[in-house]
Amino acid sequence: MSDLGIVKAESFVFAHKPNRLRLDSGDFFGPITVSYETYGKLSAKRDNAILLLHALSGDHHAAGRYNSEDRKPGWWDNFVGPGKGLDTNKYYIICSNFFGGCMGTTGPSSINPQTGKPYALSFPSITVSDMVRVEKALLEHLGIYKLRAVIGGSLGGMQALEWTLLYPETVRSAIVIAATSRMSTQSIAFDAVGRNAIMSDPGWQEGNYYGTEGPDRGLAIARMVGHITYLSSASMRRKFGRALLDHSDQQHFYDDKFEVESYLSYQGQSFVERFDANSYLYITRAMDHYDIAKRFGGLNKAFRKVRSKFLVVSFTSDWLFPPHQSMEVVRALMSNDKEVSYCNIDTDYGHDAFLLEIESLARMVRGFLDHA
Amino acid sequence: MSDLGIVKAESFVFAHKPNRLRLDSGDFFGPITVSYETYGKLSAKRDNAILLLHALSGDHHAAGRYNSEDRKPGWWDNFVGPGKGLDTNKYYIICSNFFGGCMGTTGPSSINPQTGKPYALSFPSITVSDMVRVEKALLEHLGIYKLRAVIGGSLGGMQALEWTLLYPETVRSAIVIAATSRMSTQSIAFDAVGRNAIMSDPGWQEGNYYGTEGPDRGLAIARMVGHITYLSSASMRRKFGRALLDHSDQQHFYDDKFEVESYLSYQGQSFVERFDANSYLYITRAMDHYDIAKRFGGLNKAFRKVRSKFLVVSFTSDWLFPPHQSMEVVRALMSNDKEVSYCNIDTDYGHDAFLLEIESLARMVRGFLDHA
Repeated sequence: MSDLGIVKAESFVFAHKPNRLRLDSGDFFGPITVSYETYGKLSAKRDNAILLLHALSGDHHAAGRYNSEDRKPGWWDNFVGPGKGLDTNKYYIICSNFFGGCMGTTGPSSINPQTGKPYALSFPSITVSDMVRVEKALLEHLGIYKLRAVIGGSLGGMQALEWTLLYPETVRSAIVIAATSRMSTQSIAFDAVGRNAIMSDPGWQEGNYYGTEGPDRGLAIARMVGHITYLSSASMRRKFGRALLDHSDQQHFYDDKFEVESYLSYQGQSFVERFDANSYLYITRAMDHYDIAKRFGGLNKAFRKVRSKFLVVSFTSDWLFPPHQSMEVVRALMSNDKEVSYCNIDTDYGHDAFLLEIESLARMVRGFLDHA
Repeated sequence: MSDLGIVKAESFVFAHKPNRLRLDSGDFFGPITVSYETYGKLSAKRDNAILLLHALSGDHHAAGRYNSEDRKPGWWDNFVGPGKGLDTNKYYIICSNFFGGCMGTTGPSSINPQTGKPYALSFPSITVSDMVRVEKALLEHLGIYKLRAVIGGSLGGMQALEWTLLYPETVRSAIVIAATSRMSTQSIAFDAVGRNAIMSDPGWQEGNYYGTEGPDRGLAIARMVGHITYLSSASMRRKFGRALLDHSDQQHFYDDKFEVESYLSYQGQSFVERFDANSYLYITRAMDHYDIAKRFGGLNKAFRKVRSKFLVVSFTSDWLFPPHQSMEVVRALMSNDKEVSYCNIDTDYGHDAFLLEIESLARMVRGFLDHA
């Protein structure tokens, strides 16, 4: 295994008038810029492409570095590269930033060319299906009409599932990690708290905060809540226990902080520097409203026309997208006689395990792709 | 079983100079007002008194109504009264608002007689032990030197535990419900998010918000986060599922809300009307820092001098104060040859079960008290 070396972000613009994209909301929207990266080489037969889909706070920079001084590689660098879980010696990997995001692909913080100002809340309501439609347009632009696989964790896994529903002919196999066909009431509730924190921050200004301080406090709180749900109780205990910070310069009773408090504050602060609050609202809503069973009148019915082979992976300690939700998907696929492998990895890393249980995942994914 | 009828809140003031109360912080503090209620009659032998301790957002008004038009009875009215779990035909129940609170007992929102202004952050740092010291003073004022029992759920249960440690001679039995000898990293993390939401609200003004709007938004967020942790995932699903509100007057994408979102917003808003944000900071810190094992060099060592009989109750779906924490307490008591009954009630109500599993609790508590 070696690293990918230097990579480069690219972009593609489509959906110009009169070919704007029809969204689930009924709106016609465009133009849309898509930021993406590719790793490895597309084969002459164009049959080795894998679409990699990222989670809520991820982006299209999955692996490699932008230059030799780059401090940090992409978010899944230990999984994507020569000889790794997604082997770039064999496959051509495409990772694109999702529609509605804030890392280069068009989203609420993008400039509306008609007004010269950010869309803010005039950005249309979007769905997970809309994200997938935008990804399909990118693939067509790249001349790819068949995918060896789609793969993603969390919201990335929801998009992978959605690919098999919207474009059954395109997707030979789907690797759906720590995902769900619809989120639990509790997970929606945590998202609701995050949105409430953003929207009740006076800095939010009904979404028109661009060029001002913005709802930084609210977004940080949203991230802190989210972060707790990405870890398990056991992994938090192992990582922080009940350790206290050094408080030798304590001035108030509340300066006497637990390490876990300062860790969460740090996570909140650093998220604010790289994420757009309106994107957070739009994307979490898209996740919360995603509900395959509701749309198709049942999960069994939904998977009838699916053509892909599936690898479904969950993590025992994931309480945000708990294993029973993955099992529901697996059962519905099996009752439709689809080919599906399922693994519930025993780990106490919680939802974040899809970024941490790299060796188990790599073994499983390599084996699956060899026969997919 | 019948209801208690009309009850009356009372108050008691102590710790005047030079007899101020020595707190764990080293501060001498006073005067202290204690708000409390009593139900039933103290026997001639003064041997039927039970001290009832409330949870974070509770108060001393546990049962009965203040007048015949009173819309709602006290918070544990279905458990406290003639023939009920705590039978007022047999026992004299005292329920007092804890020290640091905001329902009548002195806390950060109380007026500092030396300045004529609310203490705010000049209020000293307090501990669960300090709460118990104040409760002891109330009992002495009432002429009660032996307790038939102390009982409480959640933070009330932590105080009940603490009573058996601080005043082993006073407490004949302790009923500790959905409590812990120290909170988990995850539970501390949720409290930390709540405190962060309050303190990052510009309305907080370093705690000097009295007479102004105050950190209402932050306190509402703190309550919303807390509320999720009081319920289980299963009970949230049963209560709300993925139901959407009627959104016929929808103006923005974000008006399309789930019922659980509007429920949480309502909980947050109504909490703001009755709770003080600084109290929330002080009390959650006291809970988070409570750590019996740390103080005594191990849980086994801590319980050596305990004299009470114990009834420990946990709830299978309580993930805020999970059963394994109660079992830890039970094991430490047993290894000290203390008399302890333990019950892990099978319920999906989560932490809130101590307010909902009334029949099971009543049966158990009545049986225990008959032989205590």
